[in-house]
Amino acid sequence: MSDKKPSLFTCISPALLHLYGLHDSAVVIIDVFRATSTIASALYNGAKCVIPVDTVAKAVDLSKKINGIAAGERDGKIAEGLQHGNSPLEYTRDFIENKTLVLTTTNGTRLLQMALDNKADTIITGSFPNLSAVCDFLIKQNKNVILGCAGWKDRYNLEDTLFAGAVIQRIKENFTIHCDSSLTAEKLYEQVQNDLYGFAPNLTHYHRLVDRFGLIEDIRFCLTPDIANVLPLYKDGMLIHSV
Amino acid sequence: MSDKKPSLFTCISPALLHLYGLHDSAVVIIDVFRATSTIASALYNGAKCVIPVDTVAKAVDLSKKINGIAAGERDGKIAEGLQHGNSPLEYTRDFIENKTLVLTTTNGTRLLQMALDNKADTIITGSFPNLSAVCDFLIKQNKNVILGCAGWKDRYNLEDTLFAGAVIQRIKENFTIHCDSSLTAEKLYEQVQNDLYGFAPNLTHYHRLVDRFGLIEDIRFCLTPDIANVLPLYKDGMLIHSV
Repeated sequence: MSDKKPSLFTCISPALLHLYGLHDSAVVIIDVFRATSTIASALYNGAKCVIPVDTVAKAVDLSKKINGIAAGERDGKIAEGLQHGNSPLEYTRDFIENKTLVLTTTNGTRLLQMALDNKADTIITGSFPNLSAVCDFLIKQNKNVILGCAGWKDRYNLEDTLFAGAVIQRIKENFTIHCDSSLTAEKLYEQVQNDLYGFAPNLTHYHRLVDRFGLIEDIRFCLTPDIANVLPLYKDGMLIHSV
Repeated sequence: MSDKKPSLFTCISPALLHLYGLHDSAVVIIDVFRATSTIASALYNGAKCVIPVDTVAKAVDLSKKINGIAAGERDGKIAEGLQHGNSPLEYTRDFIENKTLVLTTTNGTRLLQMALDNKADTIITGSFPNLSAVCDFLIKQNKNVILGCAGWKDRYNLEDTLFAGAVIQRIKENFTIHCDSSLTAEKLYEQVQNDLYGFAPNLTHYHRLVDRFGLIEDIRFCLTPDIANVLPLYKDGMLIHSV
């Protein structure tokens, strides 16, 4: 009907999500450290699906019912009552292949629930480990896009915005972008893209994960493009590996 | 008692203001296009004070009572029922000297009211025209600082964040800064500081003001450091020129 390009916006905190119309958009949930990196890792290594839930109790209950793995974190560490956390390195093929992961996290799974509540048309998850899969999907969909940064308890987190910038740099020709958040994301990514890992110690979240919990290898994984290049697509309550 | 430096945070949208503790902080209200540039201009040119109000009706009523100038904008143009708008260039010395300006704007005066409601310890307003005055004040105060970006109807606006970056670049040695918003502000300002005016056409707000209303000279004024270098300090309902 028209050759007008679809729009793309970046939402830099869950507290701003209400400003955007989600019902006709594909929403990318971005929680680089670490939920959406971990989701990519689990699916890449053969998990049947990842079921995001909002409480530890639900993770425990559901995983018992379906014989799945209950996992999650609160404030950066394995949540009380769970045996498995939110590290992408936990979900090796040996461990997760053909299993279902029931995951609860502080920010990423919460934002996913918000996108559902706001009737997003399509929901996928993205992080550096599956950068190309996300970009390919968004171009192919040819729909409006919201890049949704999970942040930390509604605060702005730069690593999520950097991933938005990486996506924008690759797909901007296919979209109409009039949005200062997207401009910021792209300019910042431009500035640090050649040494993401070297830049990481500037991030508040780096200190939360590395100084407190020693998770330097998690950081490296989460910032490595295409190391687990799958497309987690939300459907019927589950994130599945869409091919 | 302690040689610990005070903290500095940047709040990139009024919708995130509740995340910060304001009661022990100096809050800088930042609305580069154009409220806080206009406030600097009026006070620099000898206005007795600027009284920010939240509605056009209040601006009209109060200005009649005190024989002041009622002014303001809604959605970028002079508000209906007012003769004067939100352009810093309107408030020349000839016009505004020894007068009181009663001002209502879409974003800047709203954020100021929010800072009051959240019991900010001290409130000042800042924009490029009074960059040095703001920096000097914050260093001298030696208190915690919140750089509060007014944005546009809760959306993030890059020009406000760029001003935050300019402040941070100048005063960061005096503060403890662990905040991804401040890091973003500083990195972006670093990137464009040598040609702010040349970068301006990338901003959404530029198009609102220039394409729709032709206000290119306003943009130039609002991005010129120290062209109206006064310190607007909020006291007893008024912004006064603090010396």
